[in-house]
Amino acid sequence: MNSKPKLPRGFRDFTPEIYVLRRSIIDKIIRVFERFGFDPIDTPVLEYWETLAGKYGEEAESRLIWRFTDPWSGRDYALRYDLTVPLARFIASHQDIILPFKRYHIGPVWRHEEPQKGRYREFYQCDADIVGSPYPEADAEIIELVLETLDELGFREFIVRVNDRRILSGVFEEELGLNNPIQVYRIIDKLDKIGLEGVKRELLKLGLGEVLVSKILDLIGISAEPIESLKLICSKYGSNQKIIESCRHLEEVFSILNDKNRIRFDMSLVRGLDYYTGPLLEVNLEKPRIGSIAGGGRYDNLIGMFLGRNIPATGVSLGLERLIDAGLELGIFNIDKLTVAEAQVIVLEWSLLKYAWIIARELRRYGVNTRIDLGRSSEESQRKKAKKLKIPILIFIGKIEEESKTATIYNTITGERVTVKHEEVPKIVLRFLNKI
Amino acid sequence: MNSKPKLPRGFRDFTPEIYVLRRSIIDKIIRVFERFGFDPIDTPVLEYWETLAGKYGEEAESRLIWRFTDPWSGRDYALRYDLTVPLARFIASHQDIILPFKRYHIGPVWRHEEPQKGRYREFYQCDADIVGSPYPEADAEIIELVLETLDELGFREFIVRVNDRRILSGVFEEELGLNNPIQVYRIIDKLDKIGLEGVKRELLKLGLGEVLVSKILDLIGISAEPIESLKLICSKYGSNQKIIESCRHLEEVFSILNDKNRIRFDMSLVRGLDYYTGPLLEVNLEKPRIGSIAGGGRYDNLIGMFLGRNIPATGVSLGLERLIDAGLELGIFNIDKLTVAEAQVIVLEWSLLKYAWIIARELRRYGVNTRIDLGRSSEESQRKKAKKLKIPILIFIGKIEEESKTATIYNTITGERVTVKHEEVPKIVLRFLNKI
Repeated sequence: MNSKPKLPRGFRDFTPEIYVLRRSIIDKIIRVFERFGFDPIDTPVLEYWETLAGKYGEEAESRLIWRFTDPWSGRDYALRYDLTVPLARFIASHQDIILPFKRYHIGPVWRHEEPQKGRYREFYQCDADIVGSPYPEADAEIIELVLETLDELGFREFIVRVNDRRILSGVFEEELGLNNPIQVYRIIDKLDKIGLEGVKRELLKLGLGEVLVSKILDLIGISAEPIESLKLICSKYGSNQKIIESCRHLEEVFSILNDKNRIRFDMSLVRGLDYYTGPLLEVNLEKPRIGSIAGGGRYDNLIGMFLGRNIPATGVSLGLERLIDAGLELGIFNIDKLTVAEAQVIVLEWSLLKYAWIIARELRRYGVNTRIDLGRSSEESQRKKAKKLKIPILIFIGKIEEESKTATIYNTITGERVTVKHEEVPKIVLRFLNKI
Repeated sequence: MNSKPKLPRGFRDFTPEIYVLRRSIIDKIIRVFERFGFDPIDTPVLEYWETLAGKYGEEAESRLIWRFTDPWSGRDYALRYDLTVPLARFIASHQDIILPFKRYHIGPVWRHEEPQKGRYREFYQCDADIVGSPYPEADAEIIELVLETLDELGFREFIVRVNDRRILSGVFEEELGLNNPIQVYRIIDKLDKIGLEGVKRELLKLGLGEVLVSKILDLIGISAEPIESLKLICSKYGSNQKIIESCRHLEEVFSILNDKNRIRFDMSLVRGLDYYTGPLLEVNLEKPRIGSIAGGGRYDNLIGMFLGRNIPATGVSLGLERLIDAGLELGIFNIDKLTVAEAQVIVLEWSLLKYAWIIARELRRYGVNTRIDLGRSSEESQRKKAKKLKIPILIFIGKIEEESKTATIYNTITGERVTVKHEEVPKIVLRFLNKI
């Protein structure tokens, strides 16, 4: 014996019941993404460190990226931290691609976080991005995509919060003249957790004057019906060209979407990553309160960092783990399938294996997911295991069945039990499974 | 601009057309694996180095495993080198799992190989394993699974070569008394490339006597109808208990499968990995000659290295890259789908976007994968792009269509063109796509 088995800290195995649940959710997401005409891609889990460096901001870069030096080549590699920077590198690597390029990418990313409940070092993102359109309709499509995806998954009560990086910088940096905006944004970002009073306290502690703080509080209090909110901003800062332009951009987004219930303009939405340049979005569920389940925005300069010329891009990332946790809590998802097997051939005596094998083979040919005992277990043990795995159909092969070339089929759901000629077995099983 | 875009050496991006092909192949493999009642799992891409160490043999361990030291924790990690050792660790980590446990695992693994045509540093394995059965029927099921999988994928001419690690060691080590069997196995392994004459030359160069070499050549020449071959071995080494037992085990495997055309006993089959303990298998295509496309065997001691008590296991791994390369060469796979999009809404004037959006939304609700222009391109440019992507259905929205609340649908496959009321659009498009 070499070593105790250890799963790396912060990493997870997916057992069949979890895997099957995750796959059913991913399949639904894919269905919506493809309905919108997004195409799937994949990229390596590793990138050269220089590809990821300088894209995410200081914290991610100094603490959160899994990076290492390859002892053979001496080169620095990193596990991808998200799917957006790899997309930018992808675009630069495939310059023949037709723009606008709409791709989705569902896969794991790695962050060197301190593991805690619901936070892992390896987790899945489900990203959809549009590359090559600077227009509001691209941002609108991303928001509509999120709405439809959450709908398809069965979520009902959620809000898409929208803001714009240019409005943030126009207002806080140009108009209010903050010279430490990043610190202010970080405080604003905590609004959900610490409330307006908490934000006020921290802003004052930062050394900002009372008047300035109350202006900031007024602004981040703007979280309402989108077009009205934009009018309010415009009325306050109508002389600032950057603010006006981004308000117009957002107005078009909102007017295409025409959804006043689930979309909100929210000046307190900041988002952390360095690469955003325009509209920002984040989706929160009403219940449970688990932070955002999706986020994204426009990043018109990121691809240019690889390509030398800018290509505009906008997108969204859904966090699979949070979606699943929330869906389980809300009861819209369930861990109820322990195996893909639909039928179990129970072999009463090992000498009957060859006949039982033929029955199993036939069932598989008809598309029934079929297990057959491979452990030479007793009938009781085979039944017990099948019951634990909730396999709905049992097929008993005893001496009588072998001699008469029949099989006894038991539907554990309805209690029905029939003995039929072997060539009838697949048909009966399919009927029991409501497949014909 | 920071850096030129660079894909890490030996790694690949999957563009949509490649991704879609790969997915369709993986879906077929999954369908067969699940028909046999194998359940999906996943494990982290990283394991602690100590989990992988000492399992694969010297070459893999010293040269081929991507390993690194985490600068924060000082711990050694490695990217998984295959899916078998992670399975063994998984079993030890989940001791409540019901045995026999049949799992499949499809995902990337990483090897620090020198990249060359068809050989990558990140590639996919499709593994199916049965944990908890020492019996021949488990090995038989693995072989039957491989046969069915290749059938489902459309391969027709292939051979499953079978041998047994115990027969190899019984014959070469115990009976022929070779004291450097590993070196001999390595030479035998090259039979396919260098032929019998080449093997003879190299064995003589190793310093083996003429008589011994000719015995070895006789043995590895045994590659025939399985049961006959086993009889031949037994007649030569009938007094060696280990050889007799493993011959009996294989005989049962062959008699369950009862397939004389596609299964062959082959004494020249060696296989590299250290952890095998019993039956070995490898699948080769008749054409193209690209090495094995699947391989596996029994490894009854590997799980015990983690668990402290042995649990028998047997399985197979299909190499996705080789399957795809071979299938493309044989013409059974094609890269013909450049996008998942089935319909493109072509907007003749940007002012018509909102009406066009409603048409697109409606199509998506009916499950049609629909793109709409987001780049404010000219009609010609929109048509050109749709043509390049081979999108079959075009839906034109011009002033007339908007005013009359209609859309003009063009089936690029048949040349059909109709203008219909907007509420008729999904039905007509679905009909053009042969979906209703």
